[in-house]
Amino acid sequence: MERKEFRDLASPAEARDAIRSLSLEGGIDRVPLAEARGRVLVARLDAELDVPGFDRASLDGYALRARDTFGADEADPADLELVGEVHAGEEPDVAVGEGEAVEISTGAVMPAGADAMVPVERTTRVEQRSTEQASGETASTAGDTVQIRTSVAPGDNVMFAGADVAAGERALGPGTRITPRDIGLLSALGIDEVPVRSKPTVGIVSTGDELVRPGEDVASERGEIYDVNSYTIAAGVEDAGGEDVLYPHAGDEQDEMERVLREAAADCDLVLSSGSTSASAVDVIYRVIEEQGELLLHGVGVKPGKPMLVGRLEDSAYVGLPGYPVSAMMVFRTFVAPAIREAAGLPEPETATVEGRMAGQERYGEGRLRLMPVGLVADGDGETLVYPVDKGSGATTSLAEADGVVEVAPGTDYLEAGESVTVSLFSPDVRPPTLLGVGEDDPTLSRLLDGLDNPRYLSAGSRPGLRRLREGLPDVAVVAGPTDRDVDAEELGGWEREWGLLVKPGNPDRIEGLGDLVDGDHRFVNRTTDSGLRSSLGAAVADLAADRGVERREIVDSISGFDLGLRAHESPARKVLADEADAGLGLGETADRLELGFVSLGTQRVRVLANPDRRSKPGVAQLEDALESIEPDR
Amino acid sequence: MERKEFRDLASPAEARDAIRSLSLEGGIDRVPLAEARGRVLVARLDAELDVPGFDRASLDGYALRARDTFGADEADPADLELVGEVHAGEEPDVAVGEGEAVEISTGAVMPAGADAMVPVERTTRVEQRSTEQASGETASTAGDTVQIRTSVAPGDNVMFAGADVAAGERALGPGTRITPRDIGLLSALGIDEVPVRSKPTVGIVSTGDELVRPGEDVASERGEIYDVNSYTIAAGVEDAGGEDVLYPHAGDEQDEMERVLREAAADCDLVLSSGSTSASAVDVIYRVIEEQGELLLHGVGVKPGKPMLVGRLEDSAYVGLPGYPVSAMMVFRTFVAPAIREAAGLPEPETATVEGRMAGQERYGEGRLRLMPVGLVADGDGETLVYPVDKGSGATTSLAEADGVVEVAPGTDYLEAGESVTVSLFSPDVRPPTLLGVGEDDPTLSRLLDGLDNPRYLSAGSRPGLRRLREGLPDVAVVAGPTDRDVDAEELGGWEREWGLLVKPGNPDRIEGLGDLVDGDHRFVNRTTDSGLRSSLGAAVADLAADRGVERREIVDSISGFDLGLRAHESPARKVLADEADAGLGLGETADRLELGFVSLGTQRVRVLANPDRRSKPGVAQLEDALESIEPDR
Repeated sequence: MERKEFRDLASPAEARDAIRSLSLEGGIDRVPLAEARGRVLVARLDAELDVPGFDRASLDGYALRARDTFGADEADPADLELVGEVHAGEEPDVAVGEGEAVEISTGAVMPAGADAMVPVERTTRVEQRSTEQASGETASTAGDTVQIRTSVAPGDNVMFAGADVAAGERALGPGTRITPRDIGLLSALGIDEVPVRSKPTVGIVSTGDELVRPGEDVASERGEIYDVNSYTIAAGVEDAGGEDVLYPHAGDEQDEMERVLREAAADCDLVLSSGSTSASAVDVIYRVIEEQGELLLHGVGVKPGKPMLVGRLEDSAYVGLPGYPVSAMMVFRTFVAPAIREAAGLPEPETATVEGRMAGQERYGEGRLRLMPVGLVADGDGETLVYPVDKGSGATTSLAEADGVVEVAPGTDYLEAGESVTVSLFSPDVRPPTLLGVGEDDPTLSRLLDGLDNPRYLSAGSRPGLRRLREGLPDVAVVAGPTDRDVDAEELGGWEREWGLLVKPGNPDRIEGLGDLVDGDHRFVNRTTDSGLRSSLGAAVADLAADRGVERREIVDSISGFDLGLRAHESPARKVLADEADAGLGLGETADRLELGFVSLGTQRVRVLANPDRRSKPGVAQLEDALESIEPDR
Repeated sequence: MERKEFRDLASPAEARDAIRSLSLEGGIDRVPLAEARGRVLVARLDAELDVPGFDRASLDGYALRARDTFGADEADPADLELVGEVHAGEEPDVAVGEGEAVEISTGAVMPAGADAMVPVERTTRVEQRSTEQASGETASTAGDTVQIRTSVAPGDNVMFAGADVAAGERALGPGTRITPRDIGLLSALGIDEVPVRSKPTVGIVSTGDELVRPGEDVASERGEIYDVNSYTIAAGVEDAGGEDVLYPHAGDEQDEMERVLREAAADCDLVLSSGSTSASAVDVIYRVIEEQGELLLHGVGVKPGKPMLVGRLEDSAYVGLPGYPVSAMMVFRTFVAPAIREAAGLPEPETATVEGRMAGQERYGEGRLRLMPVGLVADGDGETLVYPVDKGSGATTSLAEADGVVEVAPGTDYLEAGESVTVSLFSPDVRPPTLLGVGEDDPTLSRLLDGLDNPRYLSAGSRPGLRRLREGLPDVAVVAGPTDRDVDAEELGGWEREWGLLVKPGNPDRIEGLGDLVDGDHRFVNRTTDSGLRSSLGAAVADLAADRGVERREIVDSISGFDLGLRAHESPARKVLADEADAGLGLGETADRLELGFVSLGTQRVRVLANPDRRSKPGVAQLEDALESIEPDR
């Protein structure tokens, strides 16, 4: 197993510079106005016409000479002769002379001779031929007069040509990111197509024989997993203003990988590969870059993200991302997204940051900059607590449970509990959850959470839930079955659930209770000791041992698989479904839902315990109401 | 002219309630994962499988039994027999017994019997058949041993099945707005299609015979103008998470208007009309609503926006917006966009607000809530000054020069200069300009501004520029020609420009100077007195009057059109181009660009004057550098 070693890790600043030195910029697109929102103008647009293009009546009323109204008021109106009318969208066919007025509608062209207008509310029409009008014929204005009950100055109630935008005026500058308001301005200028910066095209190549696209079948026994990076990075590229192009999986076959990389390099401004840190992928990439490009950098002093590659592949920029999804996204966000945004002409997003205190001590002590994904929760005083979200280096999903990132400087040994940190949110519209819960996984709980605004629940099991509550992190812990020690908490409510053994449909093995597992030759699947189900099973084992007058250990050793605990409440059931086990620990509700047989071993209470300091949080109150609704009489 | 009067204006809260009472909500779309970003989940998604689906090696190295490494270290490694290898994407074909190890790659399935793994860096391979390997044949592991130079605990460097996400776990709740991180989670679960809320469809109907779509020719003499509302509202609908449908112009013909309204109502969840406040449009809408719907509200106590209509048209919700673009957008933003967002399931955007001080006194004194568009500028101390942006009720473009809105409570008589106000920004990513300038319009200036980051320039003319600078609003004023009084300002730089008479190509009227305009029978077009060009022309008129020994007024009266001043520096030229005038006041540069004849009357200096308090603003420094580059020797 030969491996390329990383010597002389580049600093994060060097990595940024290397990526910046690659040109990702595309050309110019001409887009219709209707598609221009959010795009970035490449050139200044000047007004080519006056807006409005004519002197325009601002209201419905009468156009006239201001001088003719001087001195007029309610008591002593000025009488003017009506000589015609102008509507919006018509060319005036009359002029206004001394002592004359023209009826005019909002937005119509001011007739020649008129220099002001009076709104209809301040006038009285005196009709000479009211009979004609009553008979249904079109009213003729000839001979009518209008009484003007106010005086106006020249220009009153008239919008002069060019008053809004004047020909030759600078309308929008280069680099403007077009808003709906700018679209209003462009519309007014009659511009229906705008020159905008092309979105940089970003090719995404995932390598790895074990990757399967979502929607297809995954063969876990062969170690297949769903490809997380392709769609995630693609969404990140769109978010940053780029245009993503997904390439088919390259697998680990070298010729195929090279072919896909070259195709992507030919088509795109930037090629991103992930999973390119396996030895064979690195070999191919090194070779292609050496033959047809330039390697600028291999290895950066950040965690996660050390094995990043930066270079050029033919005419395209190239960045190799780590294969692990969390690492890939953190590197993408920190180094690649800013470069895409810059190429797209978009400003750095208003870095939404939040100050908070570390909820607990966090050890570090490495020479690399750490990009630490964190979750946020408001404590009883409304202050923000910050906790690391980390399910281990292979985890794919941690980021969905995180709100932002704390950068921990190289050489930091500890972040102390209570220490102030700055969290840069994943985006300005990230809303920290209204409720943070930790504890037992349960279908009733899932339904309750559906009714809450933006809750976050970490189904870590009853024991970790209690431990975290004791440490003061979550708002609530959800605990099932017997617990070894109490914490200072207030019970908000709870429910009963039936638990037992999930067996094959129809129970062909005739497993009737725990004793059959001890005495028979059945494959059993257990839950981890974190689970409240496991606590109840432990109590049942102790009872059975007492009944039989044997040691507890003897019972346990006779159950094949007792020590193998799975994390999730449905996983044992799914092992039974897949015929990888004959019985699994689980819930009656799960048996019903998955149409399995069920051997009840009892009921256990699930309790929702609130941190006493957090009772006033709206999310906690919402949950309490929801609990009330399922156990109204408590 | 019969008019519907508004009695009993509804309060803004009543208007919100009326719109909320209409159901805009669409159904459910099933979208591919690649298109799910930003959409809103309608149902909870639970994990249907464990992620990873198997116990997985976290690193490249050797899978083994932890017990066999106990006590091993660099000095005293444990020797294990190599019995096979497993790569990612392969099903293991060996098991690990006591004293045995299996080579394993990152992400591969842990073989049966192994409960931990050791990374390759902490091992030394001892090959028994190195000759075979050198000869190029595939290396066989048989007979090799591996020295393990560290001890590990069971579970070390292994990610257990379900450790990331466990089957049955609640993955994403209903109402989740899908982020790239959520797409990562969905990918990991193999989900390739997600049920999301349909975007509410919003039909947009603009009425008015005078409206022309951008890109077509506009006949100003007939009072035609470009339709601003259609594309602007459409962009606002998209911004709010809706799907816009633009209907062809209805004109003012009643049958046609009714047909378009009914078509839109049949197709859309919400119909918006604008320009529906003209008497004939209101008649049609009233009639259609009475026949086929319900009128909930007519008239709201806000300014702008009084003539808003809310009701139902057949099965669709209906809101009638004012015709004036600024009014239409303010009403849309305040009342309609929140309803669209709610129907789309999107959260209210983090209301980005800014506290600032009023730059000057603003009179109000009406009984309606005022939605006042404002611009922002940082003063010398970094505090935010707020000034109203208002070009009059017919203006189409004010909003492109505004950053947000101040709500002024009904009954407020004044906002005092220096009074604190809260500005709600148009969107959280609004960036107030880095430089605010007011003054003369000039092509050189336009080019200089192109090189600055996000400047804002109000080309109001030299006189208003000086006045505003005196009042302390802008960072710089740009002033051309002679000025009547000085302000306390620092000149950053400037340039010379040639000015004179723009005449028809080839100068067929043989206009050689100002004297010819006085003596001949030519139609002249002037600029307003706000313009620095007009000041220089005034000086030239005075000189000519002195030369001829006549009164200044005599000269002025002999030039046909002298008193008609246009606002923009190109507008007179465009009148000459359109043969509506024989000569216009303008710049040599404009004559060149529009290929007109030019009679020079002199040069004038354009000066950029900075507010002394603002010299340290980055935008001012940028402008000073740009000025330096065009007049390096000054």
